Amino acid sequence: MKTSSADRPHVVILGGGFGGLQAAHALKRAPVRVTLIDRSNHHVFQPLLYQVATAALDGTDVAFPLRSLMRRQWNTEVLMAEAASIDAASRVVRLASGHEVTYDYLILAAGAESSYYGHPEYRRYAPTLKTLADALDIRYRVLVAFEEAEQERDPAVQRALLTFVVVGGGPTGVELAGAIAELARHALKCDFRHIDPTKARVLLVEGGPHILPPYPPRLQAKAVEQLNSLGVDVRVGDPVRLVDESGVVVGDEHITARTVLWTAGVVATPLGRSLGAHVDRHGRVEVTPTLNPVGMPNVFVIGDAAILVQNGEPVPGVAPAAIQGGRYAARAVVKLIEGKTVEPFHYWDKGQLATVGRSRAVAMFPGGINLSGFIAWGMYLTVHLFYLIGFRARIRVFLSWVWSYLTWARGERLIPSMKEAATVLAAVQPASPPATASEQHAPEPPLH
Amino acid sequence: MKTSSADRPHVVILGGGFGGLQAAHALKRAPVRVTLIDRSNHHVFQPLLYQVATAALDGTDVAFPLRSLMRRQWNTEVLMAEAASIDAASRVVRLASGHEVTYDYLILAAGAESSYYGHPEYRRYAPTLKTLADALDIRYRVLVAFEEAEQERDPAVQRALLTFVVVGGGPTGVELAGAIAELARHALKCDFRHIDPTKARVLLVEGGPHILPPYPPRLQAKAVEQLNSLGVDVRVGDPVRLVDESGVVVGDEHITARTVLWTAGVVATPLGRSLGAHVDRHGRVEVTPTLNPVGMPNVFVIGDAAILVQNGEPVPGVAPAAIQGGRYAARAVVKLIEGKTVEPFHYWDKGQLATVGRSRAVAMFPGGINLSGFIAWGMYLTVHLFYLIGFRARIRVFLSWVWSYLTWARGERLIPSMKEAATVLAAVQPASPPATASEQHAPEPPLH
Repeated sequence: MKTSSADRPHVVILGGGFGGLQAAHALKRAPVRVTLIDRSNHHVFQPLLYQVATAALDGTDVAFPLRSLMRRQWNTEVLMAEAASIDAASRVVRLASGHEVTYDYLILAAGAESSYYGHPEYRRYAPTLKTLADALDIRYRVLVAFEEAEQERDPAVQRALLTFVVVGGGPTGVELAGAIAELARHALKCDFRHIDPTKARVLLVEGGPHILPPYPPRLQAKAVEQLNSLGVDVRVGDPVRLVDESGVVVGDEHITARTVLWTAGVVATPLGRSLGAHVDRHGRVEVTPTLNPVGMPNVFVIGDAAILVQNGEPVPGVAPAAIQGGRYAARAVVKLIEGKTVEPFHYWDKGQLATVGRSRAVAMFPGGINLSGFIAWGMYLTVHLFYLIGFRARIRVFLSWVWSYLTWARGERLIPSMKEAATVLAAVQPASPPATASEQHAPEPPLH
Repeated sequence: MKTSSADRPHVVILGGGFGGLQAAHALKRAPVRVTLIDRSNHHVFQPLLYQVATAALDGTDVAFPLRSLMRRQWNTEVLMAEAASIDAASRVVRLASGHEVTYDYLILAAGAESSYYGHPEYRRYAPTLKTLADALDIRYRVLVAFEEAEQERDPAVQRALLTFVVVGGGPTGVELAGAIAELARHALKCDFRHIDPTKARVLLVEGGPHILPPYPPRLQAKAVEQLNSLGVDVRVGDPVRLVDESGVVVGDEHITARTVLWTAGVVATPLGRSLGAHVDRHGRVEVTPTLNPVGMPNVFVIGDAAILVQNGEPVPGVAPAAIQGGRYAARAVVKLIEGKTVEPFHYWDKGQLATVGRSRAVAMFPGGINLSGFIAWGMYLTVHLFYLIGFRARIRVFLSWVWSYLTWARGERLIPSMKEAATVLAAVQPASPPATASEQHAPEPPLH
C-alpha cells in the first residue's frame, strides 16, 4: 500500500513492542512521516504478561491499542498488518496481504519468538508466553485444569491435572511458576469441594545448571529458596527430552502433567533474515555500533531482533535495551536526514529485576549491588507501575495489586468462554479460517 | 455425578444467572446441600454486557467466577457442566457429559437464548449478545471493521465496513446502537488516517411499530430523539426479511453492511421443555402462582425460563423478576422441608431503565412516573453500579465510567487477538473441536 501525502521521508517501523513504540514516539516532531506496522492492534507490556496468564491482571491492563497511543501524532499512521519480508534493495516491505510499503528509512523492531529448539511439535502441548493470546490461552488451560480435576474421579488423572510444569528458568519461567503456585495455594484454596488445590504440584525445569542465568549465584540461590517457600519444585541440570500430551520427559524421568508451559528459548523473527544481512544462530541481525546491518545505513535493527556486542558482552534482550535502541534509531534517522554524523549506540544497563511472588523478588544493579526479598519486590512493583503506559492502566494495576495483596484473591479468573469464542470465530470467519495444526507448526509469523 | 455427603435434601440449581445465583445465596444457611450447575464458570451481569461489546468495560468488570461467589458457602458446590435434560419422574438432571445429578428440589433458572425467528442461519452473520463470548465476538467484529475500512480502497466496500445494523429495538438493541455510535463519533475520532469514523452509519431496525415496546409513547419518542442526536438512524415498522453476508433486507430495501447484530427475540432454553411441563410458544414453562410447573411441587422455574401471568400481565423477563423469583424459590424450598405452606409469588415492579448513551436515558416507574435525559441517565448508572457484585467491580466500573466521561475514550479496545486465540485453541484442543457451522445452527445449548 503506497501511501501518498507529503514529500517527507518515509520511516517504516516494523513492530509495536518496546523498541518500535519508543522509536515512533521519538519521531513525533521529526520532519518525516511514519508508518508503524504491527500484526496486532496493540502494544503489549510483556513483563507483566505472566500476571495475565495467572489471572492476576486483565489483558487490557498490560496491552494498549497502538492507534490510541498514536492518535495525536499526526505524522504517524498505524497499519495493522503482517509483514512477510523486506526487500532492502528496493526499500520495500512486503505484507502478507500482498500489499507493499516503500520506505526511506526502516526500523526493524519485530522482536523475538519462542524457540522450541527444533521441536515445533512441542508447541501444541506446551504453549509459550509472548502475546496476549498466549497469556489468555495459558490462563484458560490452568483454570480449566482445576475445573476438570474437581470433576475427575480417577486419582491418577486428577494428579496429572493438578501438575504444572514450567520449562525454562529465565525470569518469565520463574515468575510464571511462582504465580501458578500462589494461585493454587491461596486464590483457589476454598473454591473446590472435591480437590485440594493447595496440593497442586508446580515444577520449574531448567536444562542449564542454574535458574536466572545472568544473576549472581547468591541471588540464584535466593530465588530457588523463595520458589521452594511457595511450593515450587525447582529442577536444574536436566534438559527436557520430550513433550507430549502425557507430560514431559526430564532427564530420565517421565513427569505426567496436563499443563506444560514453555519459556525456554527465543529466536528472532524471520524478517531479519529476509533483509539479507548476517544473522546469528538465534536469527538476530548482526548490527554495527550504529545499529545498522552492514552496508544498510538506512536500516536500523533494534531490541530482540538485533545482536550487538558492546564492551565484550552482548546487549541483553530486555525491555530497556529495546527502548534505548528505539530512541537511538529515531534520533539517528533525523541526523541522517539533516546530514549529520551518527554517533554509536551505547546501552545503559540499569539493572535487572525478577519477581517470584508476594514479597519475593531478586534484583541486581550495576556495580554489584544485589537485593532480594521484600525490598526487591517493592522495587519490582514500583518500576513496573512506572513503566506502564497511561494513567488509567497504572491506577487499575495498582488497585488490582492492592486488592490482591489484601485478599490473596485473583480477579481475572473467568474461564473466558474462549472455547466458546473460538467456536464462534471459527464458524463466522470463513475468510480467515483458523490455522490447522500443521500451520501452527510452520515458522513463526514475522511480527508479534 | 451422584454426590455423596450429608443426608440433607439436595437442591440443584440450573443456571448461574440472576435467578440461580440469588437462589443459591438465599440457601446459604438452609438445612440443604446445594449444587449450582452452569456451563460457564461465571455469572454475567447481563445489563452491562453491551458496554463490554463496545469496548467501554472489560469482561471481568461484568462477569464473576461462580466459585468465588460461593467459596465461603460450605453447603454449596459449583459444577461447571452442561445440563442436557431433566427427568422429573426420576428427579435426575442429565448432563451433556453423560453424568447424572439427582435432586430432591430443582430450581430451573436456565434463562433464555436469542431467537432468530426460525432462521438459525442468520446467527452466522448476525451475532447476538447473551454471553461474555458474544460480547467479545461483537467487540472483535466492530473494531476489526474499522481496521479493515482503514486499509480498504474500494469505496463501496469501505461503506459496507462502516455500516452497522442493530436488529431489535428493545433495551439491548437501543443500548448497543447508541454505544456503537458513540464509539465511532468520539472514541475513534482521531485514530485513523484514511477513514473518518464519525461518518460510520449506525442503523437500529425494529419490526414493530415502536422501539422500547413496554415504555410509554412519550419515552419512546424521547429515546428516538436521543438516538438521532447520537447519529443513529432508527427504522421501525419493517421486519427484517433476510440476513446474509452482504447485509440485511429490511422491508424492500437491501442495506449493505458488514456488521449486523441481532437482539430481536428470545426463546427459553430447551431444558424447560424436557421437564414435560406446558410451555408457551417461546419455550417458557407455564408455572403456577408458586412458580411450579403443574403437578411438580418440588420443581421451581424462575426468571426468563418461566411464564407467569400476574394481575393480567405477564411478569417481564427482566433481572429484578429473576432475582425475586430466585429468592422466593429458595424460601419455598425451605418451607416445603419444614412442612409449611408456601404463599404465592408476587412480582414487585420497581420500574425499568434503558440508556441510549452519554447523558441520555429513559426511565419508567410504577405510578406513571417517567423520566428522561440526564436524570434518568444518572439513575441508570447508580442502579447498575449498586447491583454489580463486589466492591472491586464497583470501583473498577466506576473508575472506567468516570474516565470515559472525562476523556470520551474507550479503554477496552484491544482487538483481543481472539482470532489468534481461536487459532490456538482450535489447534490445541482436539478433544473438544470447535463446532462446525451446522452445529452452530443446532438448537441452543441448554444453560448459559
